[in-house]
Amino acid sequence: MSSQVTLEKITNLCKRRGLIFQSSELYGGFNGFWDYGPYGTAMRRAVEATWWDYMVEQRENVVGQDSTIICHPQVWKASGHVDQFADIMVDNKDSKKRYRIDNLLEQQSEEILAKVAELMGSTSDIGKLEAAFETKLQEGENIDSVLADAKVVDPSTDKVGDWTPPRQFNLMMQTYVGPVFSEENKAYLRAETCQPIFVNFQTICNSTRQKLPFGIAQTGKAFRNEINPRNFTFRSREFNQMEMEFFCHSDDSMDWYNFWRDQRLAFYSDVLKFKPESMRTHDHDKLAHYAKAAMDIEFEFPFGWGELEGIHHRGTWDLSQHAEFSGQKQEYFDQGRNEKYIPTVVETSVGLDRLMLALLCEAYDEDEAETAKDGKEVEGRVVMRFPAIIAPVQVAILPLSKKLGEGARELHAKLKPFFRSEYDEAQSIGKRYRRQDEIGTPFCLTFDFDSLEDNCVTVRERDTMSQERVAIDQLANYLMDKIRG
Amino acid sequence: MSSQVTLEKITNLCKRRGLIFQSSELYGGFNGFWDYGPYGTAMRRAVEATWWDYMVEQRENVVGQDSTIICHPQVWKASGHVDQFADIMVDNKDSKKRYRIDNLLEQQSEEILAKVAELMGSTSDIGKLEAAFETKLQEGENIDSVLADAKVVDPSTDKVGDWTPPRQFNLMMQTYVGPVFSEENKAYLRAETCQPIFVNFQTICNSTRQKLPFGIAQTGKAFRNEINPRNFTFRSREFNQMEMEFFCHSDDSMDWYNFWRDQRLAFYSDVLKFKPESMRTHDHDKLAHYAKAAMDIEFEFPFGWGELEGIHHRGTWDLSQHAEFSGQKQEYFDQGRNEKYIPTVVETSVGLDRLMLALLCEAYDEDEAETAKDGKEVEGRVVMRFPAIIAPVQVAILPLSKKLGEGARELHAKLKPFFRSEYDEAQSIGKRYRRQDEIGTPFCLTFDFDSLEDNCVTVRERDTMSQERVAIDQLANYLMDKIRG
Repeated sequence: MSSQVTLEKITNLCKRRGLIFQSSELYGGFNGFWDYGPYGTAMRRAVEATWWDYMVEQRENVVGQDSTIICHPQVWKASGHVDQFADIMVDNKDSKKRYRIDNLLEQQSEEILAKVAELMGSTSDIGKLEAAFETKLQEGENIDSVLADAKVVDPSTDKVGDWTPPRQFNLMMQTYVGPVFSEENKAYLRAETCQPIFVNFQTICNSTRQKLPFGIAQTGKAFRNEINPRNFTFRSREFNQMEMEFFCHSDDSMDWYNFWRDQRLAFYSDVLKFKPESMRTHDHDKLAHYAKAAMDIEFEFPFGWGELEGIHHRGTWDLSQHAEFSGQKQEYFDQGRNEKYIPTVVETSVGLDRLMLALLCEAYDEDEAETAKDGKEVEGRVVMRFPAIIAPVQVAILPLSKKLGEGARELHAKLKPFFRSEYDEAQSIGKRYRRQDEIGTPFCLTFDFDSLEDNCVTVRERDTMSQERVAIDQLANYLMDKIRG
Repeated sequence: MSSQVTLEKITNLCKRRGLIFQSSELYGGFNGFWDYGPYGTAMRRAVEATWWDYMVEQRENVVGQDSTIICHPQVWKASGHVDQFADIMVDNKDSKKRYRIDNLLEQQSEEILAKVAELMGSTSDIGKLEAAFETKLQEGENIDSVLADAKVVDPSTDKVGDWTPPRQFNLMMQTYVGPVFSEENKAYLRAETCQPIFVNFQTICNSTRQKLPFGIAQTGKAFRNEINPRNFTFRSREFNQMEMEFFCHSDDSMDWYNFWRDQRLAFYSDVLKFKPESMRTHDHDKLAHYAKAAMDIEFEFPFGWGELEGIHHRGTWDLSQHAEFSGQKQEYFDQGRNEKYIPTVVETSVGLDRLMLALLCEAYDEDEAETAKDGKEVEGRVVMRFPAIIAPVQVAILPLSKKLGEGARELHAKLKPFFRSEYDEAQSIGKRYRRQDEIGTPFCLTFDFDSLEDNCVTVRERDTMSQERVAIDQLANYLMDKIRG
C-alpha cells in the first residue's frame, strides 16, 4: 500500500469516479450501506469472477451453489446465531440514548472503568470486560445494577445515566414471511453464506458425483445489523461474502487446512498481485472447542491491519448441529475407507467488499508524468495500479484526433468482445491519459494518423508509461498475454 | 417447448441433477424459496453473464450499477410501494384462516359470487371484482360487511365465515435497521431492482461521461412476500431480476421503446435460441397515466403462457416521484438541445429465475438413442437441448477406458480455462452419454486408444448425435466457433 494513501482519498476517488458511494444518497444516505456505480460494478464483478474461476471452475473437487438469503429460521437456531450472535447494549432512560457496552466503557474515566471492572470481577481491559459481561449474562447472573453502582456516565450528557439492565442485541436482520407478523413467521436474512452450504451438503452429495474430499463454494449477500458500521466498506450492514467449505475426513483435515491456506495466500500474491508487505497472517490464539486451527489473512488498511479472509478448521461442528436440530443424520459413507463419519470442514471465507477496499488501497499511487502544459515538464498524477485482470477498464482506445474516429471505433468494436474496453475521443490526449490513470486502465491504445497507413497503434502501459507500436491484427493476442501474465 | 414436458418432469430433473431444489430441505423446505445446486448455479451464472454482456458490456450507451438490497425507506415511499404494493386479505375469526380476496372469491358458488358482485357494484369476473375491492378500499368506502352480507363461505370449513373487514397486506418484506425495532427504524428489502437505479441517476450522470440518451442496468435479488408462491421458480418470494432503465428525451422515447423491444426479442431468438412458437408478445390494454406504451414478452410454460419480461415506457414518473420526495430536482441539462428536462424512461425487466425455468422447459426433450444393451437397438433418453452458451457443462471429456486417463486429463486441463468442462471416466460410455444428455452437454469428446496415435478425439454432438474426428490442437477453436455460432 502506498504511504500516501488515506481512507479519505480513497472515498473521494470512489465517489468522484462513481466506483462506490453511499446507498440512497438522494435521501441523505443510509448508514452502513454502499452502492457500486459503473466502474465499481465492473471491478467487483471481475473480482468475484476471478475468485470463482480460481476456487470453482478450475478445480474438479469444488462445486458451486447459490442459496436464498432468507432460509428456514431453524438454520440459524442450529448454527447458534439466534441465541449467540449478539452485542451487549444498554439504554439511558434519561437521555434515551442507546450504547453498545464496549463503546460506552471506552468513554469512561479510568476511575469509573476500574470500579466497573471490580464489580464484574475482571480487569479493566475493554475486551476482557466485555467478555465478562457476556459470560455473566449467559449464566443468568444479576448484573442489572453494575452500571449504576459504578456511576457510569452518559457521554452525550456528561451526567451519570439512569441505565437499563445490560442486554444482548442480536445482529441478525429479521423479517416476517407470510401475511401474519407473528413469532412463528419470523425469519432472518442470512448472517453468512456458509450455513446454507452445510444445510445442502447431503442434497449436493446425492445429486453430483462428488466423493469426499470435496468442497462447495458460494458467493452472495450477507447481512449484519452492526451498531457501529465504519471504515467505508470494511464494516457495513450489507456485504458480499465468498466462501468455500471443504468436506473431508478428520485424519486429513490438517493437510487440507494447510493446502487451502497456501492456495488462498497464492491467490492474493499471484492472482491479485498484492505486495508481500501489505499482507500478513495471524493464527488465532484461542480456538473453538471443535477446531484444530484457525487463522486470518490480514491487509494493512490506512486505518491499520484488518481481516480480509479467515481460514477455519470447523471440525464436525456445523454438520453435527444441523443433524441435531433437523433430526437427520449428516453422515457420509466413505467407500474408500469403508467407514461412515460426519465430515470435518475446512473453510475459506473472504469479504468481497473488504477485498475491493484492499485492492483500491493497494493500487493507489501518486507520481509524476510528462505533460505538454505550458512551462511544465511533468505534472502530478493519481494512478490506480490495479492488476489488469480486475481493472474496471482494461483497454482504452484513444484516437489522436476526432477525424480518426472511424478507424478507432472499428478497433474498439474488435476488442470489446474480449476486454473491458472504453472509447474516448474527448479532450486532449494528456487529459485522457490522466483520466485513464485514475480509473486504473492498464493499457491505452493511441490511434493516430500513421495508424491509417501502417495498421498499428501505440500501446501505452499505465505503470511504466512505456510506449510500444503494435500491429492491430496482433493486438488481441498481445493484450491477452499481458493481462494473463 | 416439447409437448412431452410437464412441470413435474422439470422439477424432478432439477432435484435429481441438483439444478434447483427447495431452500432448507433439511428442515422440511421453505415455501417460495429455491436454492441452486452446482449445475443450476453454473447455468444461472452463465445466463446472467450472457444478459450482462448483451445489455452492458457490448454497448457504449449502457452502464452497470449494483445497489444494496436494503435502501432508505423513503425510496419505497416515493415509488408508491409502501402505500400501494398490496394484496387484499381477510381473516375468518372462527377458523383463524386467512385468505387473499381473489383466492377466496374463486372458491365461492356462483350465487354467492353474484351477490358479492351486486354489493360491490361490479361484475362477477374475479379480476374486475378484485379491482372493485381495491378502489373502494382506497377511496375509504365502507365495505366491512360485504362478505358477511353475501354469506361468503370459508372453503376450509364449508361454513359461512365470521369475516374481518377486508384489508390490504403489503407485499414488501420488512426489517429494522439499528438496535431499536421502532417504526422509525423500519426498512424494506427491495421489491424491484429498478428503484435504486432512479435514485442513483444523478450520481451516475455526474461520475461518468455518459450523456443522454443512455441506460443503467442492474441485476440482483428482489423480494416479495407472496401469499401464494407457485409454479416452481415462476412465482417465488425471493428472486433475481435483470433490469435496464434507459433515460432519454420524451420526443425520442417511442423510438427507444421500439428499439429496446426489438433488441430484447432478438436476445431471446438469436442468443438464447427460443423457438418462435414458444414466445409471444402482449401489448398492455390499459396503460398507467404517465406511460405511452407497455408490453410483455411471454413464454408458454407447461402451466400456460406467463410473463418473462416487461418492456415499459415509464414516462417521467419515477424521477418525478423521487424529486418530490427528496426535494431535489431530477432534471438533466441536455447540451445538444440546450434544454433542461426530466428524462423519460424506457425499461426492460426480466425475471432471471423465470427465465431459467423457461430455458429448462424449452430445452426438455425425449427421444431415442443407439444403445449397446442386450437385445436393444435404441433406448429412450431425456435430452436437454440447451444453447451451448448457457449449458451448465459445455464440454465433457470421456476416456473410452480408464487406462486412457492420463491423456484425457491432459486434454481436460487444456480446455478447462476456456469452457465449462467436466471429466468423467466412470461407467460405460453409453451411460456417460445419457448422463451428459440429461445435463444438456452439447459436446462429448471421446478419447480412445487411437487418440494416443493420431492426436484426435471424437466429438459427439448432443442434438444430432453425429460424430466427428477433430485434431486436439484444433479443438479449442473448433468448439469456440460452434459455441459462439
